[in-house]
Amino acid sequence: MALYVQKFGGVAVGSSERIKEVAERVIAGRKAGHDIVVVVSAMEGETDRLIKLAAQFDVAPNPREYAVLVSTGEQVTMSLLCMALMAQGQPACSYTGAQIGLRTSDSYQKARILEVETNSIHKELKQGKVVVVAGFQGINDKGEVTTLGRGGSDATAVALAAALQADECQFFKDVAGIYTADPKIVKQARLLSHISFQEMLNLATMGAKVLQDQAVMFADENQVSLRVLSCFADCQGTLINNNITANNQGRVSGITYRRQQAKLTMSAVPKTIDFEKQFILPLQKQDVMLDMLIQDNMTTDASDYSFIVNRDEYSDVVSFINTNNQNNPKLSINSDEAVAKVSVVGGSIDRSPTIKEEFSNVLVKEGICIKLLKQSSNKISAIIAEDRMEIGLQALHQAFGLHKNV
Amino acid sequence: MALYVQKFGGVAVGSSERIKEVAERVIAGRKAGHDIVVVVSAMEGETDRLIKLAAQFDVAPNPREYAVLVSTGEQVTMSLLCMALMAQGQPACSYTGAQIGLRTSDSYQKARILEVETNSIHKELKQGKVVVVAGFQGINDKGEVTTLGRGGSDATAVALAAALQADECQFFKDVAGIYTADPKIVKQARLLSHISFQEMLNLATMGAKVLQDQAVMFADENQVSLRVLSCFADCQGTLINNNITANNQGRVSGITYRRQQAKLTMSAVPKTIDFEKQFILPLQKQDVMLDMLIQDNMTTDASDYSFIVNRDEYSDVVSFINTNNQNNPKLSINSDEAVAKVSVVGGSIDRSPTIKEEFSNVLVKEGICIKLLKQSSNKISAIIAEDRMEIGLQALHQAFGLHKNV
Repeated sequence: MALYVQKFGGVAVGSSERIKEVAERVIAGRKAGHDIVVVVSAMEGETDRLIKLAAQFDVAPNPREYAVLVSTGEQVTMSLLCMALMAQGQPACSYTGAQIGLRTSDSYQKARILEVETNSIHKELKQGKVVVVAGFQGINDKGEVTTLGRGGSDATAVALAAALQADECQFFKDVAGIYTADPKIVKQARLLSHISFQEMLNLATMGAKVLQDQAVMFADENQVSLRVLSCFADCQGTLINNNITANNQGRVSGITYRRQQAKLTMSAVPKTIDFEKQFILPLQKQDVMLDMLIQDNMTTDASDYSFIVNRDEYSDVVSFINTNNQNNPKLSINSDEAVAKVSVVGGSIDRSPTIKEEFSNVLVKEGICIKLLKQSSNKISAIIAEDRMEIGLQALHQAFGLHKNV
Repeated sequence: MALYVQKFGGVAVGSSERIKEVAERVIAGRKAGHDIVVVVSAMEGETDRLIKLAAQFDVAPNPREYAVLVSTGEQVTMSLLCMALMAQGQPACSYTGAQIGLRTSDSYQKARILEVETNSIHKELKQGKVVVVAGFQGINDKGEVTTLGRGGSDATAVALAAALQADECQFFKDVAGIYTADPKIVKQARLLSHISFQEMLNLATMGAKVLQDQAVMFADENQVSLRVLSCFADCQGTLINNNITANNQGRVSGITYRRQQAKLTMSAVPKTIDFEKQFILPLQKQDVMLDMLIQDNMTTDASDYSFIVNRDEYSDVVSFINTNNQNNPKLSINSDEAVAKVSVVGGSIDRSPTIKEEFSNVLVKEGICIKLLKQSSNKISAIIAEDRMEIGLQALHQAFGLHKNV
């Protein structure tokens, strides 16, 4: 007998039929003897419908009103799921963020969770009920509705799991778990049964995120075991925690990528310039992250800086640099707009003497030019031409033996 | 400078365009120097959409979950109206029933309002804001969402007006106010500028209700002046309170009707039977009201009872009587299924020596047979053949001079 927090996203509750299937899955958990708290997102498409409604009034609607508007999406799902559970004979009870006492910071659209009250939940669970909580929302000190930002329902689930000391926080997704690589690109990709939080963070950054980063980091800090599983099939999915045996260390567990990047090189940046203050921080304020930043000290007076940004931010970044650099006529920008990032991920792979070398060799053997290379303790990344990305990923997957069961 | 509570129903907020028009109307009130609290219903069709969603899970969804589901309708409207007001430069702020502290009885679907907190509203008004409150909803002692039943947003508006001691509670409807008769039937029908609560209750019972009865009664008890006006045109509408001058008394102020009634006469009911206990109360429990009930003491041993019911309840009522009357073989039922009710309404019309006589004479002159006749202090009603109803109404309107301005 365990206590599980189960989170179902927008696709899993996308229609009445799907909600009934969620109810069946939850009831199966109850029948196996477990206590279950469910966190739901808005039905697929519902949040967009509400956003479109708001857009008819204002290009930048008031954040307080916007939060209370979009929070209705989860409120609808939670009540429908309770109806579905009760129609199948399972007592259930819904709570909005406000009702559960999920207190957040003051921000209406990117609030941080400060505290969750668990008294009501424990009382309902003791009565044999399933508790269904609206994800993505909370209240601030003034009793106003706040929302947690994109993917915020993941954060609700992990915060509840931590507060309730749940045995697992389970995420039912439209994928079966976390793979060694994207199965759409690498046919031999294999489902990982158990990875660390750090591997999760590194692997999940490819394209559509599987879990919200902050939720994973919060789980890491609070020792909440996570599990990603399919909402469409019965499977064990991927367990994520730090109880990893030592033989997981020092080897590659998966590979990942990011498409549609642009590489920039700023040449002959005088050393008198504080690069961080003049470029990195102001761009960060505009939500532009300079990734893979490498400083190359060409002379004693000047440096080259290379980095990548998302391709759709490229022209904005270039004009920002030009505007902020009128005093340095020598500085020039070289760019390559058709690149992608490929990475191998694993626990403490920097300790392995061979992984970095093999990584480069594999790409070179495929005739792929490495435009930038960077290593951290858990990841090695290369910037390559985007049209060679799929071949590179397939070769890396093969070379590191990720297709084989371990 | 006055304080107005303005209530806008589902039609008035039926689309984004309509909501923008509501915002313009509210802003016009602000520009005239008034403080304004707005109560909104769900957008036309939205509550039905939510009810249909719920019906996909259960024919009788759990009332607690049903309440929290349908309450999202008003929550959406309140936030959109605030966005519309702010987009036009008017500061505004929304409150759900829970946020405003609108405490109700425990019933999830037909809750009574117990208390409204006004501190937050006064604070917002002082800052020059328009306060927009979600109608139809409140919270019980456990912090659960409750709803006030059909037309419940009217009750929210009157309760707020009473608690705030507002100068008027204004209802913006798809009619211009209360008329001397239904303009669809009586072409000369005239808008009434000022009527009493009792006249409102009597006049508004025709077909679609203009205001919820309970809201009108609550206004009467708490001396809240009401005004019904059009959400589509600028007009004074109809003021409803008890500050009526004496010359309004003892004369007919309007006429009204109810279609699709059925008349029943139970003959030779033994006096040993407690008619109320055996028939009236059990039917009332099934929400069937016996209207126009008249007891005719035919002999010392037995009475005839005549009354009307809604036609769609007729066959149920007949089978109920037959089932509950197997010990009285003498009793017989006569029925007339094609009748309607016409009434003249006015303050203390029972004090007039001539109104009742004229009422009968007008109908008789038109060759209309009066099947039942009943008088109270503020109303005289007759049951007549439904196919003569319109002619009867037109003749009464003319005879009592209701087409003339007074």
